Amino acid sequence: MTVLPPGALTDPAARAAATSDRSGRPGAEPLAVVRAVDVDHVVEVLRWATSTRTPVVTRGGGSGLAGGAVATQGAVVLDVAGLDRIVSLDPVDEIAVVEPGVITADLDAAAREHGLFYAPDPASAHLSTIGGNIATNAGGMRCVKYGVTRDAVLGLEVVLADGRRLATGRGTLKGVTGYDLTSLLVGSEGTLGVIVGATLRLRPVPVAEATVAASFADVETAAAATSALAAARLVPSVLELLDACTLATIDAAQGTSLSARGGALVLARTDGPDAASQASAVAAVLGATATWIEHTEDAARADELLAARRLALPSIERFGRALIEDVCVPRSRLAEAVRGIEAISAETGVTVHTFAHAGDGNLHPIVSWDPRLGDEVPEDVQLAADRIFDLALELGGTLTGEHGVGLLKREHARRELGDTGLDVHRAIKHALDPLGLLNPGKAF
Amino acid sequence: MTVLPPGALTDPAARAAATSDRSGRPGAEPLAVVRAVDVDHVVEVLRWATSTRTPVVTRGGGSGLAGGAVATQGAVVLDVAGLDRIVSLDPVDEIAVVEPGVITADLDAAAREHGLFYAPDPASAHLSTIGGNIATNAGGMRCVKYGVTRDAVLGLEVVLADGRRLATGRGTLKGVTGYDLTSLLVGSEGTLGVIVGATLRLRPVPVAEATVAASFADVETAAAATSALAAARLVPSVLELLDACTLATIDAAQGTSLSARGGALVLARTDGPDAASQASAVAAVLGATATWIEHTEDAARADELLAARRLALPSIERFGRALIEDVCVPRSRLAEAVRGIEAISAETGVTVHTFAHAGDGNLHPIVSWDPRLGDEVPEDVQLAADRIFDLALELGGTLTGEHGVGLLKREHARRELGDTGLDVHRAIKHALDPLGLLNPGKAF
Ligand SMILES: Cc1cc2nc3c(=O)[nH]c(=O)nc-3n(C[C@H](O)[C@H](O)[C@H](O)COP(=O)(O)OP(=O)(O)OC[C@H]3O[C@@H](n4cnc5c(N)ncnc54)[C@H](O)[C@@H]3O)c2cc1C
Ligand SMILES: Cc1cc2nc3c(=O)[nH]c(=O)nc-3n(C[C@H](O)[C@H](O)[C@H](O)COP(=O)(O)OP(=O)(O)OC[C@H]3O[C@@H](n4cnc5c(N)ncnc54)[C@H](O)[C@@H]3O)c2cc1C
Repeated sequence: MTVLPPGALTDPAARAAATSDRSGRPGAEPLAVVRAVDVDHVVEVLRWATSTRTPVVTRGGGSGLAGGAVATQGAVVLDVAGLDRIVSLDPVDEIAVVEPGVITADLDAAAREHGLFYAPDPASAHLSTIGGNIATNAGGMRCVKYGVTRDAVLGLEVVLADGRRLATGRGTLKGVTGYDLTSLLVGSEGTLGVIVGATLRLRPVPVAEATVAASFADVETAAAATSALAAARLVPSVLELLDACTLATIDAAQGTSLSARGGALVLARTDGPDAASQASAVAAVLGATATWIEHTEDAARADELLAARRLALPSIERFGRALIEDVCVPRSRLAEAVRGIEAISAETGVTVHTFAHAGDGNLHPIVSWDPRLGDEVPEDVQLAADRIFDLALELGGTLTGEHGVGLLKREHARRELGDTGLDVHRAIKHALDPLGLLNPGKAF
Repeated sequence: MTVLPPGALTDPAARAAATSDRSGRPGAEPLAVVRAVDVDHVVEVLRWATSTRTPVVTRGGGSGLAGGAVATQGAVVLDVAGLDRIVSLDPVDEIAVVEPGVITADLDAAAREHGLFYAPDPASAHLSTIGGNIATNAGGMRCVKYGVTRDAVLGLEVVLADGRRLATGRGTLKGVTGYDLTSLLVGSEGTLGVIVGATLRLRPVPVAEATVAASFADVETAAAATSALAAARLVPSVLELLDACTLATIDAAQGTSLSARGGALVLARTDGPDAASQASAVAAVLGATATWIEHTEDAARADELLAARRLALPSIERFGRALIEDVCVPRSRLAEAVRGIEAISAETGVTVHTFAHAGDGNLHPIVSWDPRLGDEVPEDVQLAADRIFDLALELGGTLTGEHGVGLLKREHARRELGDTGLDVHRAIKHALDPLGLLNPGKAF
């Protein structure tokens, strides 16, 4: 064993590239970066890490928003993005076997050639890897109908901290032999093992889709309207909400005039053979309190309507630096959450744009500041973010619906997990990674 | 601390009732039985167990088919069936909070009063408890569309082996703070903690249902027809298959004439606003190779058609003693599995009836013997069952799709999990139950 693992890169460019992810939270310079070429290489690196007691930070697309993949002092970054083969795609079983570095959107595109799709759709699908999605249990717009990444994972190939290979789950749709190690690994943010392969469930592409956009006087009326959809037992495949602050910023950045139609926007999609009639039902419910409504089965027009949601974050980031939050509340408490966030913004004087996966109760309050104040998160911005976490917990919610804890939310995660919860986390971490080498200091 | 826990029953009747479940596998007489009256009582019993180093077997409805709840030598049986309150049921959030002893069918009935239903539907729904369903990750006929028990569990209240209380998961539809301890507990067969509460997801009752029944010349044609449904991207809410042996036995027991229509029966259900048109599409696919087909939207007639599935097991049990197996294979290999089971039956001379949740690839081969041979599983029956497990693993499957490992399948489970898998199971068991008190000798 040498002082560095096989294939280690130590040039400043490689090391600098691994110090950060999309959270903006700066990490430390790693000892070295290893771009894994195959699974045996991953095994070698972990054996080396165990024998030298070196921490390992696994890295996929680096698109994380919680600082999960940022390098820490003295660690080696193990970049698995290069393991990017779709190993097999079985259209009858509707199952794909992939390496961890496959880009999310590429798997979806491959599935669509067979009339199938890969349901989890983080907005980062063109940047993120399947391995990173699994490690964070990524969500997206389609979760409201099709579930999160966990719901798409049937089995995993994992390399443990000491280099042993573990297969979890199976290639069947059901199975209950042993503990659900697959789910334990999903969302574990690189702290329990390195994911080197996944067996994933695909789904039939819906035969039709329809889209509804509706504006409302204010965000509370809009939130109430989304609750009314649930009460009417309608299950859209997408249900998004944007607040006035977000609409105004999109208008300013893109030259649109969304704000003129109302102080909040709801975007809904339905799918399946009855997409059109479902969309009519959705439009009837939303229309009862909307100031403006449109309803289309035309794909191009639907894209135009959904563009507002896609452009929200880039528009906000054009004018300021942003902390992208991700709280989730019981969906009946969405309006209360929005009202509470507005109050926090007013009291702290900090700008908060809010958009939400309304159907899941998952809000993204974007807490922003003037870029001239620098990269470091200003104190009042952090205070506003902390108060938003408190609010989510008070409403019976959680501080991260889909982005993960990473580095950014560790203190708050401890509060959410409680003392016994934290003890159990430590015991499980110790069971799988007794030397504490995998992504130390992250997740909890 | 006394020699027995608070509320211990030691009378022969109580102890005898706890020695077995529906697997027929006899257990040992327990030291005592405790019928828990509330969560504090559960805590007291586990503290007592820890201080006296006494094993604890948790028991729900006792309807298990794997011997999971049968008492073991020197153990106390902790019966939680009496904790049977539905604590809350929120129709807007579509969430119920329940105690573990709630009978599965009772929760479903309570949900239906609000236009909702509880999706997991083991055939034992009138006997089994929610706690037992969670501990075994129970399946049922609706899994093919709505998922298994795990997919309905958002959070758990658990008492750990040392009496500490742990809350896992949350009351929101999404959330990724910490490890997925909820899923780790689901399917853990009473070996990691005692489930004393659950937050469950309900779903809107489909507005319409339609049912298709089709007979085929033989089981292979029938299995191919169910694969053709998947290839046509149809997603029925129920998709069951019964073989010739099963049909003949139902006919003999119930005076029906199912066998006259063909050597295999497929039962499919569709639901949702377009149930009828979906059922037509299903009927078109199945009809291409069927010897007989019927298609109905009438609920009473649908019940008659589905009765064959419901009556399968009781009919078989009228004529013989039965080992109820539960293998699962990739659904594209269903026909191969059925053929292999027929070959095993022919080679061993043992009668095997097979019916299957065809949409999931989950087969229930019922290996039976003459009751005059006694209760003990005869050697040739065990051999046939063992060869069915081997077959399932060869086909890339698993030895239990939904019933669990319990006592009955431990040896085979070890093979399926592999050495590293088994080590990881032991490490996790040790992390949560270091003294090994919870259901020792079960599950792996
Ligand atoms: C514009 C934008 C939009 C986004 N939208 C969404 C969204 O809609 N929904 C959502 O959920 N997220 C979203 N994200 C966040 C991010 O894209 C997801 O968290 C994604 O799953 C990260 O994947 P990655 O491959 O980039 O992982 P990385 O950022 O490289 O890593 C994330 C975490 O996973 C671990 N990890 C990565 N690969 C592996 C592996 N193979 N084995 C073990 N651990 C591993 C890392 O150690 C780290 O803890 C968005 C991000 C951006 C920049
Ligand atoms: C006629 C019949 C049909 C069946 N059909 C199906 C089917 O379609 N699908 C299916 O999946 N199963 C089926 N089963 C099997 C059985 O009903 C299920 O396994 C069910 O989930 C067991 O629930 P129970 O409450 O009876 O649990 P029990 O039999 O009492 O216990 C089962 C296991 O769970 C543990 N356990 C029970 N309660 C708790 C708790 N609160 N905390 C921790 N551990 C606990 C026990 O220790 C044991 O290991 C059937 C059984 C019968 C008799």
